[in-house]
Amino acid sequence: MRFYETLIDNNIVKAFSFNTVPGSVTAPQGFAGAGVFCDIKRMGTGKGSAKGNKRDLALIVSSAPATVAGMFTTNQVCAAPVKLCIERMKHGQARAIVVNSGNANACTAEQGLRDARAMAVATAKALKISEDDVWVASTGRIGVHLPMPNVKNGIANAAVKLAASETASAQVTEAIMTSDTKPKAVAIEFQLGGKTVRLGGICKGAGMIQPGMSPTGARPASAPLHATMLCFVTTDAAVERGALQAALTEAVAHSFNRITVDGDMSTNDTVLVLANGLAGNAVVTRSKKADFEVFQAALKHVTLVLARMIVLDGEGVSRFVTVRVNGAKSFAEADAAARAVANSSLVKTSWCGGDPNWGRILDALGYSPATVVESKVDVGYSLPGSKKILYSLKKGRPTSVAFKSLCEVVAAKEFDLHINLNLGKGGALMYAADLTGEYVEFNKGDVSDPASLGG
Amino acid sequence: MRFYETLIDNNIVKAFSFNTVPGSVTAPQGFAGAGVFCDIKRMGTGKGSAKGNKRDLALIVSSAPATVAGMFTTNQVCAAPVKLCIERMKHGQARAIVVNSGNANACTAEQGLRDARAMAVATAKALKISEDDVWVASTGRIGVHLPMPNVKNGIANAAVKLAASETASAQVTEAIMTSDTKPKAVAIEFQLGGKTVRLGGICKGAGMIQPGMSPTGARPASAPLHATMLCFVTTDAAVERGALQAALTEAVAHSFNRITVDGDMSTNDTVLVLANGLAGNAVVTRSKKADFEVFQAALKHVTLVLARMIVLDGEGVSRFVTVRVNGAKSFAEADAAARAVANSSLVKTSWCGGDPNWGRILDALGYSPATVVESKVDVGYSLPGSKKILYSLKKGRPTSVAFKSLCEVVAAKEFDLHINLNLGKGGALMYAADLTGEYVEFNKGDVSDPASLGG
Repeated sequence: MRFYETLIDNNIVKAFSFNTVPGSVTAPQGFAGAGVFCDIKRMGTGKGSAKGNKRDLALIVSSAPATVAGMFTTNQVCAAPVKLCIERMKHGQARAIVVNSGNANACTAEQGLRDARAMAVATAKALKISEDDVWVASTGRIGVHLPMPNVKNGIANAAVKLAASETASAQVTEAIMTSDTKPKAVAIEFQLGGKTVRLGGICKGAGMIQPGMSPTGARPASAPLHATMLCFVTTDAAVERGALQAALTEAVAHSFNRITVDGDMSTNDTVLVLANGLAGNAVVTRSKKADFEVFQAALKHVTLVLARMIVLDGEGVSRFVTVRVNGAKSFAEADAAARAVANSSLVKTSWCGGDPNWGRILDALGYSPATVVESKVDVGYSLPGSKKILYSLKKGRPTSVAFKSLCEVVAAKEFDLHINLNLGKGGALMYAADLTGEYVEFNKGDVSDPASLGG
Repeated sequence: MRFYETLIDNNIVKAFSFNTVPGSVTAPQGFAGAGVFCDIKRMGTGKGSAKGNKRDLALIVSSAPATVAGMFTTNQVCAAPVKLCIERMKHGQARAIVVNSGNANACTAEQGLRDARAMAVATAKALKISEDDVWVASTGRIGVHLPMPNVKNGIANAAVKLAASETASAQVTEAIMTSDTKPKAVAIEFQLGGKTVRLGGICKGAGMIQPGMSPTGARPASAPLHATMLCFVTTDAAVERGALQAALTEAVAHSFNRITVDGDMSTNDTVLVLANGLAGNAVVTRSKKADFEVFQAALKHVTLVLARMIVLDGEGVSRFVTVRVNGAKSFAEADAAARAVANSSLVKTSWCGGDPNWGRILDALGYSPATVVESKVDVGYSLPGSKKILYSLKKGRPTSVAFKSLCEVVAAKEFDLHINLNLGKGGALMYAADLTGEYVEFNKGDVSDPASLGG
């Protein structure tokens, strides 16, 4: 057992004890998975490809019906599988998730919805479960119809390979990757109501990353409006549906909805949590405060670990910057200020160069919707986990801290940027990335390939 | 005389006749200028530098008192010279503008304001005019105090070199450049109330370019919140002050406030127009509709020519894209949609690659604040001035237009992107640029140099 030291921020997670365990979505009891290659990207032109046959279709299956909570992109242009999941939210129960990479099934009109449903039907048939208990997700190119014969072959193939092994878990993780260079997975074990329970999760990201998700896909009036990121979490804890959704909404607010790679919100962002109850704990509800808090902390930990992995492995990313804004007039203003800084091309390029440039930061704060008074702003830098903040700016004026000392912090692969507006009590943070030549090179597009890349 | 074919958009400029004439701000009667090198960037370390001694200080002087209209950055963090100009707006009269590059005099607190005033005082003294008649502008590094001995030497030197020649005009234009690779200048001659009048203008831009200016520097409630760009326009037309400001506000709304290079709004954006009346026309007022419309058209032409030059010469820019959104529910929604597309990292990188990617465009529209219905959106491309629009998307679905044909348009240095949301009558356009590896390389920052680059 190790003590959880509030991973990033004291206000995010109540300390709780947990162990990290091997595997990911198949670590909790009753879950199995399989990831296969069915040639989705090449649209059925052959078996395998010159580039190798990275797995592109996965199943995650629970032996018992699981309660589901979900969060979905608030992009008005949303993919067919997202629409299907939002429909499934009424019912809120799952036995399986079918997910493909290489094709987002977004901007594919009615045919897209028919294809998403056909994925559910094929999975239900192969697993002998109800179609309504199958949830669907996709990521990859936008505007191209799925090669359904390949997809169906993939589903049939995956269904006979289901396993709860670490290998199976790794294959599922690989199957959802697109421009990701690394698999993103975690699993933990902790005590809940006297029982040992597990939570496992996987995700993918890389580009088109500034999620703004809600449980219905509808935009909250004041929500941040700004990848494809997909995240699937499984647990053998028994959690009442309302409690599961409340815990997920809160966890996403502090993790995936606080990351940005390039400021673009995707058409396909989806987070699903499946809780099958096989650990045998007394069902977690919001009124059982102690249990709920433990479960909430566990889910926050898992989503935050995964969210950070997305930024660290973002397209072309060379630096991970936690932008912390405090002293704003409100949370909304702190959030707006943090997003303005985290998405400013000039600030992001300065990070790429390891330059502790405060002029660009003040500039971005100044044009953000937040109230900013130049003569009150503090700007400082620290290494992650260090309490030593080096201030380059205090009350809007340069400090005597040596430029070289600032450069040493900003030269790190990860650092924290501390901004205090000194106007109020609003605070917010963003997990952000630099803007590099590699990002541009990767996304310039390959005009020899008429399919739009996105999702 | 050539007939003015409504430079870019039919709705912007009423057709009027004009001639292009040599020179820029010194082309109108009574205006003289000078641009000198006084070593502002190296902060007084020597005469000239290894990089050459690009002029860095200019005077633009009118022999008669001129009426002034101005537009200023709405960034809350605004530079000292901007604050001084906003103060001068009460008075609204000028005999001279003093402007430096290499130092933005931004985030320089009280010392900055004292320095800006000292620039006015030194200019007034050298020219034997009132301090209140001297307007000040700066561009360059943020957060560094001006090397005032150098600045004062520069002013004294420029004051004795004033001339109305094309050479003087070119030297003034050079003196305001920072990361610009080309001088940006234009002058025209036209008939106004039976008299021949001239309008001349210069500007600079390159980075930190998405101006959102207002006459008071205050943010309009619903304004686009998004260079340093500086623009100085002179005319020998007699124009009443209210009419001059009305014409400038309208001209900037259709030019500088519609451009974006990197989405960052500067601390120093300033546009000043000086009208000295020496052409002898009857004073233009808003109630003399015919004259006002001609003057308005002329000012729109000059500001639009200059604004386009800024985008074409933006940092690292390889493509100039006019994003035209129509069919939005309102102008505000059209504007928001156009800005979302024009500032999307993924859309901008696809332009860099010459890729007619519509998935990223739909994605950006979908997360913009504008109402968007996927199944209604048209996306097309045309070459500038061509009426032939090739649609890649109609009602949200790909058309049969060959990908190769679309690539041919998008491979051009300049093209128009046509988006129709088909929901209403709101229309707006943005003059936008691609995002290139050169932009990143240029802005990575030089950590061997402890001065922040900006302004």
